[in-house]
Amino acid sequence: MSDPRPGEFELIARLAARLKAPRRPGSVGIGDDTAVLRFGDRHLLLTCDIAVEGRHFLRGQMPMADVGWRTATANVSDVVACGGRPLCALISLGVPADAPVALYEGLYDGLAEASAHYGFDVLGGNVSGAAEIVLDIFMVGETTRFVARSGASPGDLVAVSGTLGDSAAGLHLLTRPPASPGEEWLRRRHVRPLARIDLVEPLREAASAAIDISDGLAPELGHLAERSGVRLEIDPARVPCSPELRAFAGARGEDALRYALHGGEEYELLLTLPQRRLAAFAPGSLTVIGEVRAGRGVLLAGEPLAPEGWDHLRPPQPRR
Amino acid sequence: MSDPRPGEFELIARLAARLKAPRRPGSVGIGDDTAVLRFGDRHLLLTCDIAVEGRHFLRGQMPMADVGWRTATANVSDVVACGGRPLCALISLGVPADAPVALYEGLYDGLAEASAHYGFDVLGGNVSGAAEIVLDIFMVGETTRFVARSGASPGDLVAVSGTLGDSAAGLHLLTRPPASPGEEWLRRRHVRPLARIDLVEPLREAASAAIDISDGLAPELGHLAERSGVRLEIDPARVPCSPELRAFAGARGEDALRYALHGGEEYELLLTLPQRRLAAFAPGSLTVIGEVRAGRGVLLAGEPLAPEGWDHLRPPQPRR
Repeated sequence: MSDPRPGEFELIARLAARLKAPRRPGSVGIGDDTAVLRFGDRHLLLTCDIAVEGRHFLRGQMPMADVGWRTATANVSDVVACGGRPLCALISLGVPADAPVALYEGLYDGLAEASAHYGFDVLGGNVSGAAEIVLDIFMVGETTRFVARSGASPGDLVAVSGTLGDSAAGLHLLTRPPASPGEEWLRRRHVRPLARIDLVEPLREAASAAIDISDGLAPELGHLAERSGVRLEIDPARVPCSPELRAFAGARGEDALRYALHGGEEYELLLTLPQRRLAAFAPGSLTVIGEVRAGRGVLLAGEPLAPEGWDHLRPPQPRR
Repeated sequence: MSDPRPGEFELIARLAARLKAPRRPGSVGIGDDTAVLRFGDRHLLLTCDIAVEGRHFLRGQMPMADVGWRTATANVSDVVACGGRPLCALISLGVPADAPVALYEGLYDGLAEASAHYGFDVLGGNVSGAAEIVLDIFMVGETTRFVARSGASPGDLVAVSGTLGDSAAGLHLLTRPPASPGEEWLRRRHVRPLARIDLVEPLREAASAAIDISDGLAPELGHLAERSGVRLEIDPARVPCSPELRAFAGARGEDALRYALHGGEEYELLLTLPQRRLAAFAPGSLTVIGEVRAGRGVLLAGEPLAPEGWDHLRPPQPRR
């Protein structure tokens, strides 16, 4: 083969091409945060997200309860981005021979916390031997209106929740004790991210398109623009960065915006909506960062933005 | 910890103990072939089953299309054992750096075949780096009546579909060319097992309890007896073994019954039903192998039967 190692998105496209389109009416397949199954008048949202030892986490680098919490959060975030609330989850566990049971108990404590916080039931799962710890979560959610990536229209605003880039900064702070409360806050944004289930009602009501920021703002903007067939024009000065991130990046001689654009595992929301629908959100819960135009691609301060971000098939890039 | 390596079922019990019981009415959690989510009069069945390289298959030992087919079949079989038909699946893929894309394309060809045969849609999934090839399938099915493991009553008959032990014999035939059409048939029973979706209508109508035979007849009898709170009395002479298995075992000086009792990855059905409901099944599609009595455990020809079978946390035992 000419290309034995395509990237994550190319591989998914090549494999998806070998499958038939869904035959059931109302089903939405590969390409969104979740798959959709129409069940009577209800939209069931189906998603899965995996954590693999050595790729998504290192044993001993954070408590296993945090690994359980974060992986559950990634799944909940996909459901929320489609306008839904999570109902239940199955857990598929890969168990290497050298891992003591206490590790899995910690993992399940984190899952139990997430289950209580986000309001889903863990209904079952599967255990198998494996070379490394694998936590694969399958989540089922529900919504009355499916918010897709493809609904952005020219004239809509582009907005995000929260502040961006904190989690990527927090990743640096796993290997040394935090030097300040600000650093501790950044670390916590990485190990205990919050899916924005608090925003799901206005999102469902008002958003024309939405996606959660799991791989960094830049690639998520790219996905939204491509799926909606529009151009997104973003003002970098409006991208919300926390004072904690600005202090952290400044001390390293770096630009906070780089963290916001390319940092992964954020779980804030990126959405588009008509100006008149902005009032559905409580003041301060969204930041408008740009506009939807006719065209293609993403412009940042008028310049094309490369969709660089996390690719889960490539090892994490060392960051200074 | 006193016991760093409990078996599969003990580990599941210990982890399940850390979770709260489902809060949604009608939800059935850990302990059955599938989890159940009730929507009005419809039951959504949720299950997952994983194939890990080096544990469930070896690269090069069988075509990857067979690995895809078998893993999909394992999931469909869990849905069928609960009286359901599969609706859709998500695929979670672990991708090691050294595996060429053609392997995944083969895997997906097998999944596409299974999707067409069993009638489910592949709606999405997830790709991650991993140390070994991991194929984790999450399947959603549907039934109007959930057939649990717990419904067997004293006086019911115990019955199985098909013939048992073929797959375990076929496992031996992966590493050498089959010496006869009978051996080729056994090999095919291993690499291309069929979930008994052809029996789902009478099963849903007539069975008091059911389970699919994924870990061998002996352990599945044990699960059914335990969950139903009954004793199962089995006549070994009535356990159906194929002529091909008898010839294979006989040539090795072994007892075909041993394969039937302890061989895994079978995907035939074990069920209980009242005598008067037997007519729901077409003649010859079931074999009655015993009866349900008040009491506990499993008796084979009057002797207690140890529930020995596959444990996916322990490496496969070498078989002569």
